Amino acid sequence: MQQKPLILVTNDDGVSAPGILHLSSIAVKYGDVVVIAPDKPQSGMGHAITINSTLRIQKTNFHKGAIDEYSCTGTPVDCVKMAVNKLLPRKPDLVLSGINHGSNSSINVIYSGTMSAAIEGSLEGTSAIGFSLCDYDINADFTPTTSFIEKIISSCLKDKLPQGVCLNVNFPKLKADEISGLKICRQAKANWVEDFEERQDPYGRSYYWLTGKFVNFEPEAKDTDEWALQNGYVSVVPIMHDLTAHNYITHLQNTL
Amino acid sequence: MQQKPLILVTNDDGVSAPGILHLSSIAVKYGDVVVIAPDKPQSGMGHAITINSTLRIQKTNFHKGAIDEYSCTGTPVDCVKMAVNKLLPRKPDLVLSGINHGSNSSINVIYSGTMSAAIEGSLEGTSAIGFSLCDYDINADFTPTTSFIEKIISSCLKDKLPQGVCLNVNFPKLKADEISGLKICRQAKANWVEDFEERQDPYGRSYYWLTGKFVNFEPEAKDTDEWALQNGYVSVVPIMHDLTAHNYITHLQNTL
Repeated sequence: MQQKPLILVTNDDGVSAPGILHLSSIAVKYGDVVVIAPDKPQSGMGHAITINSTLRIQKTNFHKGAIDEYSCTGTPVDCVKMAVNKLLPRKPDLVLSGINHGSNSSINVIYSGTMSAAIEGSLEGTSAIGFSLCDYDINADFTPTTSFIEKIISSCLKDKLPQGVCLNVNFPKLKADEISGLKICRQAKANWVEDFEERQDPYGRSYYWLTGKFVNFEPEAKDTDEWALQNGYVSVVPIMHDLTAHNYITHLQNTL
Repeated sequence: MQQKPLILVTNDDGVSAPGILHLSSIAVKYGDVVVIAPDKPQSGMGHAITINSTLRIQKTNFHKGAIDEYSCTGTPVDCVKMAVNKLLPRKPDLVLSGINHGSNSSINVIYSGTMSAAIEGSLEGTSAIGFSLCDYDINADFTPTTSFIEKIISSCLKDKLPQGVCLNVNFPKLKADEISGLKICRQAKANWVEDFEERQDPYGRSYYWLTGKFVNFEPEAKDTDEWALQNGYVSVVPIMHDLTAHNYITHLQNTL
């Protein structure tokens, strides 16, 4: 008898967030699911890992149909490392991260704990996908994502992603019948124009809150994830962890 | 009279670490230097930002010749955002990060707070360079790095790096006369083979320490940063923040 695929599910919003509950409920149709996710929200943690402190894990019981599940005191990347190196009986066939509450399109990918967990999965040589819904509402409706997630999981179990590549999937905030389909894209050139709001604490000392406005530098380009989402598509961007700007190497060799 | 370049200096080891003191002492020869760096070590923080909590800054007095200096309670990326959006009188001409105590070559770049600060600088449209010395010793000798840092700063002030590209510079642990020179390279394919060492606390509960061994998957390739460092060169890798795996887009369009 063929072994069922082993699927690791994680996120950055915490082990009991609605998004990860929805994702694990889909994943259990495709294999043996183990969930290990942070014990508290870890948004904006990027590829942070815990090296100057210790980690703890605890069994949890939120995910129906999972063969095992844990919360971890660390970051999303810690969760993937802990799963692969300590908790799982063998190397997983698939790493799923999300569904994030909020967009991870464009430049958000580099701040995203959700996507860093997927990138870490790809570093471990496993097909990995990060899912995000462009809706921060705790009561966001995740059901329109289901059929697309099923299609992508099926595809990645059949046609393994190449070494070093994972997928960044973002869903627009739309009803199922309003979604135009899947679109394979590149990461849009965009950034946050930020400000730090200064406040005074009760003792007269200043503190700051990071605030910002997202700006797409190429709103007309139709091959980007931002365009896809603005036009009702689910965006799928293949993401790699080789950060080398290969096309600048020759220039540097001639000038430095 | 021409305005002096405005140079932002940061790191991830903390505002008073020997590496950043050495870097600012070089930077002051090239322009007006403002230092803003974490108030405590932030190694392994990757591109983490502080979004669910507040930030505080405090004036410090460690850096001789700097026109202004601060410690910040946030991550290295927070420091760059705070500098650019709040503290600096104008957009900086150069962002320098480091000198990190320990290597940031190869895959270490994605975990590195030092390099994430440089990447954030490039996101803000500024030439940015991260420097690291392959020596974790608090008493490491940074003097052999000086002439190379001077050369790279001069070059980047004269020939601005293109939008979205920064430099990842790593120094081997060698004396000045043992260093073979600068080498422009690509990021080596490598990873950490990790383990979590399990211990018991005094109350009988388990906790874990992340441990690992670095493995270079292509030790024979002579165009990588790992090869350069092993062979006595200072490695320089141009790094970008577009993570799109462009050469996999067509395959996905045909299969998904």
